Amino acid sequence: LSIQSGKQLVVTTDILVDGVHFSDRTTSAFDVGWRAAAANLSDLAAMGASPIGITVGLGLPGDVALTWIDELYQGLVACLQPYQTSILGGDTCRSSIRTVAITALGDVEPHRVIQRSTARPGDAIVVTGVHGASRAGLELLLHPELGHNLTAMERSQMIQAHQRPRPRLDVIPLLWEVVDHGTASLAIAGMDSSDGLADAVLQICRASGVGAELDWRSIPLPSALDLWVTPAQRLDWALYGGEDFELVLCLPYPTAQDLVEQLGPPTAIVGQITSNASIVLIDANDDSQPNQTLDLKQGFQHF
Amino acid sequence: LSIQSGKQLVVTTDILVDGVHFSDRTTSAFDVGWRAAAANLSDLAAMGASPIGITVGLGLPGDVALTWIDELYQGLVACLQPYQTSILGGDTCRSSIRTVAITALGDVEPHRVIQRSTARPGDAIVVTGVHGASRAGLELLLHPELGHNLTAMERSQMIQAHQRPRPRLDVIPLLWEVVDHGTASLAIAGMDSSDGLADAVLQICRASGVGAELDWRSIPLPSALDLWVTPAQRLDWALYGGEDFELVLCLPYPTAQDLVEQLGPPTAIVGQITSNASIVLIDANDDSQPNQTLDLKQGFQHF
Repeated sequence: LSIQSGKQLVVTTDILVDGVHFSDRTTSAFDVGWRAAAANLSDLAAMGASPIGITVGLGLPGDVALTWIDELYQGLVACLQPYQTSILGGDTCRSSIRTVAITALGDVEPHRVIQRSTARPGDAIVVTGVHGASRAGLELLLHPELGHNLTAMERSQMIQAHQRPRPRLDVIPLLWEVVDHGTASLAIAGMDSSDGLADAVLQICRASGVGAELDWRSIPLPSALDLWVTPAQRLDWALYGGEDFELVLCLPYPTAQDLVEQLGPPTAIVGQITSNASIVLIDANDDSQPNQTLDLKQGFQHF
Repeated sequence: LSIQSGKQLVVTTDILVDGVHFSDRTTSAFDVGWRAAAANLSDLAAMGASPIGITVGLGLPGDVALTWIDELYQGLVACLQPYQTSILGGDTCRSSIRTVAITALGDVEPHRVIQRSTARPGDAIVVTGVHGASRAGLELLLHPELGHNLTAMERSQMIQAHQRPRPRLDVIPLLWEVVDHGTASLAIAGMDSSDGLADAVLQICRASGVGAELDWRSIPLPSALDLWVTPAQRLDWALYGGEDFELVLCLPYPTAQDLVEQLGPPTAIVGQITSNASIVLIDANDDSQPNQTLDLKQGFQHF
């Protein structure tokens, strides 16, 4: 592979296991492939990088149908194609459980690397899309009897959010367009919200040695969600549901506002970085309510 | 990661599964790590590349002892350290079966890439070390009662060949030293013998659209092997045993001879590339014997 001179290489890797990250009940082989590719492209976007290609390691029981494997690759390719990203190679072996190990490579100009460690007190926290939709879609797949008052379109949007998430690679060039029109060189902090919005904010705060205030009313939610779950459940899915694959970016206010304007709704500023050690949920419209500290044990548990 | 300007990036990936690639009966956690790193570094060497780093994806049952994981990483690091190669990152998740997914990155000058597809009729086939030792070591681990007439040293050498193979990254600079002193620009064909010497020759021949003659008496074997197995068994292990992680290189005769001299024994020329479609085992000292065509079904079967 050739790397454009002056660019830095970015690598991300994921291991996905049947019964943990996907299941025949909720995920077709096509969607397993799509989601695996999307998760890795999302990690590249979270570092500000453009994709170069992926490798695919497959562990498979001998009795897996060939169509399952064909459809897995169709899903991978369908997700990669809009970004002119190819499957570079891989490895296949026998395993008692279906396992998909993806490594994605990307490149980025050194001064445009997005890292978790550069958030500063006063930065606005921007999210590029709705949160909770993927978790809601999973619930609809597991319990089709739920959400009976949703329209077919509303139902399908949430299921799509779960089965076919879109990596937000589109945000990166717009981000730098806004930044380049703004103030001088700017380190953007960020990551994706694949393990939940709360987890993303936590990881950024930990790596940057800062805290955050999140205004829960500002978090963009799928509008149809209030038709079938309580406000508390909605917020819970938005913060801890995970797999929304949006970007969470920290940057100074005027530039953050420009970015929100450039991307349009549902992109929103959902809070700000503070110099405290904690991450606090606030209600900016109602300071009579006690602030809550984020419950970070609710994030995705690997074991 | 920074890639040196003008170099090309090389990527290789492997997925290793408990019960297929390793087992508690024959492989400690340290050795699982060592072998996983060695296999990937060997693939980099097979492309003529220098290692940059690896990623490690782990799928683990919840009841795996922490010491097993610690020792796995100790094995990885011990194998990587002599090559100043680091673990760049990775992913961990729950799985019903221990799974290790490694991706290794390396770099190489574009005109020094070793590929499978550039072997030409008349090229000598060089192997950089003995074959069959890893397979013999596995046998000694599975059946400690065998090889009772081996010395402790002989036994330990074969077991080491299985548990702690050394990637032949050391060959690459010497190879180019020899080539640079020889004729003008030269495309070297090659790969490693991790899936067996026969498989390596086959893959090179297929990719290059050529055939080969292998002189079975020239294949370097572990000397102690004739103390406890038949000549037929020895040859079988050398050709099909696999996991010797030596390099199989195809290059014109004078340069091949210089390389053998430079590397010293057991490096040897074991045959030559032909314009036939087949891969034939010959006995260069005794043409009264009928030639055998290689039985390629005996190579490593993934399923």
